[in-house]
Amino acid sequence: MESNLNNDENQNKSSLRNQIRQLVVHKNFQQVLIAIILFNGFIIVAETYFTGNRLLLMLDLMIVWIFVAELILKIIGLGFKGYFSDRWNVFDFTIVIASLIFYTTPFVSVLRLIRVLRLLRMIPAIPALRKIIDSLMKSIPALTGILGLSVLIFSIYAIIGTTFFSEVLPDEFFGSFHTSLFTLLQVVTFESWASQVARPVMEAIPWSWAYFVSFIIIGSLVILNLVVAVILSYLGQEDEENRDEQMERLYKENQELRKDIQEIKQLILNNRK
Amino acid sequence: MESNLNNDENQNKSSLRNQIRQLVVHKNFQQVLIAIILFNGFIIVAETYFTGNRLLLMLDLMIVWIFVAELILKIIGLGFKGYFSDRWNVFDFTIVIASLIFYTTPFVSVLRLIRVLRLLRMIPAIPALRKIIDSLMKSIPALTGILGLSVLIFSIYAIIGTTFFSEVLPDEFFGSFHTSLFTLLQVVTFESWASQVARPVMEAIPWSWAYFVSFIIIGSLVILNLVVAVILSYLGQEDEENRDEQMERLYKENQELRKDIQEIKQLILNNRK
Amino acid sequence: MESNLNNDENQNKSSLRNQIRQLVVHKNFQQVLIAIILFNGFIIVAETYFTGNRLLLMLDLMIVWIFVAELILKIIGLGFKGYFSDRWNVFDFTIVIASLIFYTTPFVSVLRLIRVLRLLRMIPAIPALRKIIDSLMKSIPALTGILGLSVLIFSIYAIIGTTFFSEVLPDEFFGSFHTSLFTLLQVVTFESWASQVARPVMEAIPWSWAYFVSFIIIGSLVILNLVVAVILSYLGQEDEENRDEQMERLYKENQELRKDIQEIKQLILNNRK
Amino acid sequence: MESNLNNDENQNKSSLRNQIRQLVVHKNFQQVLIAIILFNGFIIVAETYFTGNRLLLMLDLMIVWIFVAELILKIIGLGFKGYFSDRWNVFDFTIVIASLIFYTTPFVSVLRLIRVLRLLRMIPAIPALRKIIDSLMKSIPALTGILGLSVLIFSIYAIIGTTFFSEVLPDEFFGSFHTSLFTLLQVVTFESWASQVARPVMEAIPWSWAYFVSFIIIGSLVILNLVVAVILSYLGQEDEENRDEQMERLYKENQELRKDIQEIKQLILNNRK
Repeated sequence: MESNLNNDENQNKSSLRNQIRQLVVHKNFQQVLIAIILFNGFIIVAETYFTGNRLLLMLDLMIVWIFVAELILKIIGLGFKGYFSDRWNVFDFTIVIASLIFYTTPFVSVLRLIRVLRLLRMIPAIPALRKIIDSLMKSIPALTGILGLSVLIFSIYAIIGTTFFSEVLPDEFFGSFHTSLFTLLQVVTFESWASQVARPVMEAIPWSWAYFVSFIIIGSLVILNLVVAVILSYLGQEDEENRDEQMERLYKENQELRKDIQEIKQLILNNRK
Repeated sequence: MESNLNNDENQNKSSLRNQIRQLVVHKNFQQVLIAIILFNGFIIVAETYFTGNRLLLMLDLMIVWIFVAELILKIIGLGFKGYFSDRWNVFDFTIVIASLIFYTTPFVSVLRLIRVLRLLRMIPAIPALRKIIDSLMKSIPALTGILGLSVLIFSIYAIIGTTFFSEVLPDEFFGSFHTSLFTLLQVVTFESWASQVARPVMEAIPWSWAYFVSFIIIGSLVILNLVVAVILSYLGQEDEENRDEQMERLYKENQELRKDIQEIKQLILNNRK
Repeated sequence: MESNLNNDENQNKSSLRNQIRQLVVHKNFQQVLIAIILFNGFIIVAETYFTGNRLLLMLDLMIVWIFVAELILKIIGLGFKGYFSDRWNVFDFTIVIASLIFYTTPFVSVLRLIRVLRLLRMIPAIPALRKIIDSLMKSIPALTGILGLSVLIFSIYAIIGTTFFSEVLPDEFFGSFHTSLFTLLQVVTFESWASQVARPVMEAIPWSWAYFVSFIIIGSLVILNLVVAVILSYLGQEDEENRDEQMERLYKENQELRKDIQEIKQLILNNRK
Repeated sequence: MESNLNNDENQNKSSLRNQIRQLVVHKNFQQVLIAIILFNGFIIVAETYFTGNRLLLMLDLMIVWIFVAELILKIIGLGFKGYFSDRWNVFDFTIVIASLIFYTTPFVSVLRLIRVLRLLRMIPAIPALRKIIDSLMKSIPALTGILGLSVLIFSIYAIIGTTFFSEVLPDEFFGSFHTSLFTLLQVVTFESWASQVARPVMEAIPWSWAYFVSFIIIGSLVILNLVVAVILSYLGQEDEENRDEQMERLYKENQELRKDIQEIKQLILNNRK
């Protein structure tokens, strides 16, 4: 008897769970979620204009709880394993739980930062955005080499800069390894590289033109290679699929041709006998 | 009798309308229009040198009335429906009517703005320009995802910037959400991002380097993706057309080959009997 | 007798001319010319360090006369028509003759400018350079549309800028139509567009952010389209040639296949009879 | 007997050499080397923070001797010829030997520079980096033309700039040919080209706008061509390989088809007799 009762209960649970699953994967559920995240965005923007407004804070808290409820529904609906098997759900989970934990933190800046990061939930919620990030992730392996080379070149130039130019300019430029790295980022984006960085250094150390000119050229080449690598990784994905399909069609036609010809040969050979 | 008379009138009307239509779609009509718009451009430029010159103002008014006349001719010639079925005609109509309405407006700046916008009529008038805008429009759907992501990233960084840096720099940089957005546009175009924005902020808030460096890198990646998306959308349009044509030719040749072979087979089978 | 004599003379002339032609089209002749132009370059650079040095001026004059001699030899060797049928020769001719004419000009700056422009003879002399310029010229027709659009957009924004901002900034920014064009070129290259141009204007005219942001976005889009158009025009040239060749080979193979099959058909039909 | 002994010795040597070779080409050997170079990098970075720290200097010296030992092992293992036949080994050898020679140099700056350059050994040690540099080298021949054109254009503009603007701006801008070249590099990277260079010159020499605008446009076109050349050289490498393979497969299929058809023809001709 007990087992039966238990079974019934299980079935009830299971049917409830199925209903939740159907709710959770429903198209409208997603759209309501997107609307709430969007509304959350407007609230957070509004808060930068009216800091500390009570209504806004209340609405924000409400949305956090809505997010928590959505999380629980999803975990129940998809099951623990099913939910966490999607990496984007782990991402969602981390953000919502962090929102909850730090909601009463005394560190106001952490709280504020996490509140903003909640907007990142837009990415998994909207398929078009998720697709971009996914294809960006796919192109990263093709870029490891060029990224490693960038790190090496930046490091070498930063060490040379720190060693030779640290006393020429104020400390925030080549004072130490990390400030040199920042300055090199400024140089490679061509931001005041000559007027603010290279010309003052060259006044004190004439040969430094070679340092800056070589870095500009090598840096541009590396970035150009990065751009080309990204373009190729995307082109490769799309183009080949299309061509392969068309070529496959040609192969098949050719093979059918051969089959026909083999048959003819057979026919002639049979005729002979 | 009345019906007959009516018919005659209709025919007269119709033949007049046909003549107008032939006039309106005539090649020279278009070229005269382009010349007038070009001439209008010179007048508007000349007016920036001799503001308030009477002759120029008179010529400008004359051109507006020429445009109105052209509009009426076109609507009569192509019919009401035919005219407005082309989106570029709606664009033309709006500009000309706005020119007419605001010609006696007390708001001088609105009047001046609309006078300049009349030059935009060059786009529908010259096929090469219209083609560029049309193909730009076609590539927009492929860019919605990446544009949405840009808006999201800009918003998140603008909120963080407003929250943490609003008191470090003058109000025009991170004072409120919209000034932060403008500052971020400045940063993403690499314009004085280090010298005017990042370095002063970093002096007060040391960890802010992470904010700027991450924004520079993510922003560049997003723009790179935008560029790649545009290139791919264009490449896709052109390349595939060409290849498809060539492949189609190959398929057809193959199919004729098969037909020949089928015939041979039939011949041999007939021989057998 | 006279005719005979004339003929002899003609033949002599012709044989001399042939010898000159052979000299002129000889590989070493070209290489000596390149060496002289290069040497000319070093002399002109040296003159920027030692202005008015007599030896340098003498060498320079000598080189002009060498160029004139080379010109005469080429015209004799290739014939008047043959020489001027190549556009690059017209280019050469113009530069050398201008050098000669202005060598004793009282306008020193014109003289100096033409002396430098003589270096441009490097382009037709070195095939690799000539090829780049030629393929650049080939890609221009594909760019007319986008260049026209750029002119239109720059003009419209320059007129608006002159009309509304002329009294906000010093005259060299938006004072007149042509200074506005220059300022817009500065903005579109992202050079101090915010710090030097947009921010000061926005302080006086708050709505001007829309002017600058829209120009930045539209300008970038137009430049992006220009880049894509150039890439496509090059890709098109190279890619298609390669593919067309391969496809052509496939077509020919297919046609030979068909010929064979036609022969077989004929054979079978003959058998039948 | 002696010969035998000698032989034995040779065999011993050879077997020792084989063991060394096996050690040297072993995967772990490479990975240990990478780890040491990486560790060397951290030491050199650490030294920029704690200049003259004894422990760091000692560790650095130790690593130099490890590199020397590795070098000797590799030369023994691969043989003198085998070692130097790889260009990257020559690169390695030069760096290590230079490190050794200059370790006790009185010229501190040379010593420091070479210490940093040791990090470049990372490139041959990590295959991904070596591959990038190799493919960069491969794309250089395709770029010689465009690079030569850049040098020509920069030279011409630098001479014009030096000739006409040398007295307008401070000497570090257009004072001599080499400072002009540096200024033109600043202009072509769009760094303060208007605010710091063009506008001050234009105040003194109004026509100079043509100089700067033409240089900006021509310079951008040349750089655009450089970018396109790089993209094409990479695209060419990848794309063609793929397509050629597919086309080759199609050709082979076609040829087998023809063989079959030839056989059929032969069969029919045989039948006839």
